[in-house]
Amino acid sequence: MQHQKKRFNWGIIATGVIAGKFSTGLHFASGANKYAVASRSLAKADEFAKEHGFSKAYGSYEELLADPNVDVVYIATPHQLHAKNTIAALKAKKAVICEKPFAANAAQTKEMVRIARENKCLLMEAMWTRFIPAIRKAKEMIEEGKIGDLRMITGDFGYRTDMESEGRLFDNSACGGGLMDVGIYPISLASMFYKEQPEAIEALGEIGETSVDEQSAYLFRYKGGQMAVLYSAIRTETPTEAVIMGTTGRIKLHAPFYKTQKVSLIKGCEETLIDIPYEGNGYQFEAMEMMRCLNEGLLESPVMTLDESIAIMDTMDRVRASMDLMFPMDK
Amino acid sequence: MQHQKKRFNWGIIATGVIAGKFSTGLHFASGANKYAVASRSLAKADEFAKEHGFSKAYGSYEELLADPNVDVVYIATPHQLHAKNTIAALKAKKAVICEKPFAANAAQTKEMVRIARENKCLLMEAMWTRFIPAIRKAKEMIEEGKIGDLRMITGDFGYRTDMESEGRLFDNSACGGGLMDVGIYPISLASMFYKEQPEAIEALGEIGETSVDEQSAYLFRYKGGQMAVLYSAIRTETPTEAVIMGTTGRIKLHAPFYKTQKVSLIKGCEETLIDIPYEGNGYQFEAMEMMRCLNEGLLESPVMTLDESIAIMDTMDRVRASMDLMFPMDK
Repeated sequence: MQHQKKRFNWGIIATGVIAGKFSTGLHFASGANKYAVASRSLAKADEFAKEHGFSKAYGSYEELLADPNVDVVYIATPHQLHAKNTIAALKAKKAVICEKPFAANAAQTKEMVRIARENKCLLMEAMWTRFIPAIRKAKEMIEEGKIGDLRMITGDFGYRTDMESEGRLFDNSACGGGLMDVGIYPISLASMFYKEQPEAIEALGEIGETSVDEQSAYLFRYKGGQMAVLYSAIRTETPTEAVIMGTTGRIKLHAPFYKTQKVSLIKGCEETLIDIPYEGNGYQFEAMEMMRCLNEGLLESPVMTLDESIAIMDTMDRVRASMDLMFPMDK
Repeated sequence: MQHQKKRFNWGIIATGVIAGKFSTGLHFASGANKYAVASRSLAKADEFAKEHGFSKAYGSYEELLADPNVDVVYIATPHQLHAKNTIAALKAKKAVICEKPFAANAAQTKEMVRIARENKCLLMEAMWTRFIPAIRKAKEMIEEGKIGDLRMITGDFGYRTDMESEGRLFDNSACGGGLMDVGIYPISLASMFYKEQPEAIEALGEIGETSVDEQSAYLFRYKGGQMAVLYSAIRTETPTEAVIMGTTGRIKLHAPFYKTQKVSLIKGCEETLIDIPYEGNGYQFEAMEMMRCLNEGLLESPVMTLDESIAIMDTMDRVRASMDLMFPMDK
């Protein structure tokens, strides 16, 4: 007999831009009930609940976590609070999906994972790109050998923001800068395709006045000589494409690669464009994965495992060390 | 009174693939007379002269250089011979255009330049991309401020060759590997647009069994925080595109960027494609620049100056040092 699919009550921690996007995504996630939202300000929570159709609004994260009807919590707070908020939710025995970057560093990530395992709670990094249908199609084609053995991966994610417009991005103590905000996307992509972490890392960044990387780039070399050439920025608009090159061809994830609906298979002069459209904004797929894991009684997703999240954060630590970018949490 | 435009007698040293391409280019270079070709084998020189329409064939480089009717010499020998052959031609008082990379390292390049200046001979690196109309248009647009202040440049040039098919590419003593063969293109491009050399360099390469880089990547950071992210390969087919990003937009040099006929100006979601076609294979433009300089009595081209060629070779030396790639000539 199959498990009966349950409807899950979602609780959202924080009410910023990303919380809004995720809530829009939930609309397209079958089985998701927009149940509760929490902010440090009840007024903000009320407003968000009304706008996005949540039943309950809480003026503190603690109240939401104490609500026994909340099945699964999405952590949408700024980077520097991910570890703290995730750990609180896990201690309240909630399933948790926490925004990327999962934490400030690998040490924090390991602690989050330890507590998830101790409490036997499902935990997953909200790396939504892993679940985008076109990106999964690219992975499938690569595993089918369509481009031979992998040799090189390139990817970039950069946008230009005003230095005044978003303080957190330029705040070192908030884990600001391009690497943590968007560099993690191409880095996680390389980890997904190579299924290992680099043997050698070199990085260079433009570290601005506020001690965050306004633009930076990272070179990875793997055991077999494969490489990745990646870059990101918060002060430069970049093409935001990714290319996976193999011995017999390459695959391009069209811009914006992190939520692409277009993939090309390129062999010599021949390019085959594959359209893989989806409804909504793409955030629904990670929510659906959480509910699939809950339905199947999994404590982690096989697509975005906790060991890989730890390994990626460790790679990010090494990238930061290479470009002399430290956060207060590293001490 | 204007100088009367002269016809110039071209002499080609070596008869390999690149000599053939350059000779095809000469067909489209007004004022160029295909005069002589030299090989270490008279039979090869004869065959090449017949195929490409040269009047004279010499069985040694020395004979060609001794011919007083040769006005200008194109050096098409393998990388490791560039310095030696160029110096011999300069000592014979010829104007010289030598293939890229200009030499094995900056020390050799400085010596070539010293001897050119001593002999008052025109000398230029055969960086044909500098003279491609679409690339000059991109430079013009950047100088007009069309993309604001420069922030980031990316470029790649990689192809996949069999390890058996071209021995010189896998020969360390022939300055083989991707960096020297094609990496110099994006590196020279970055030098052209930034008009300076990087303050910081980090590089990683896959150094193969024969001690050459089968693929490698280089990060540059400039004084003002601008960056370049470049890579090249002889064992990986790459997109071979270049993008110049500024504060208000970006310019894409479409593949293959080094001889592109298509440039895009991208501002936000708006892309303006500019077609700048040309006849022939594109090698004619550097030949025409040589003849323009000869007509105007210049000893170097203002577009590809000798100081910049030295500076670029110095950057290449630093890239090699960063990835532990040494040649016998460095000792």
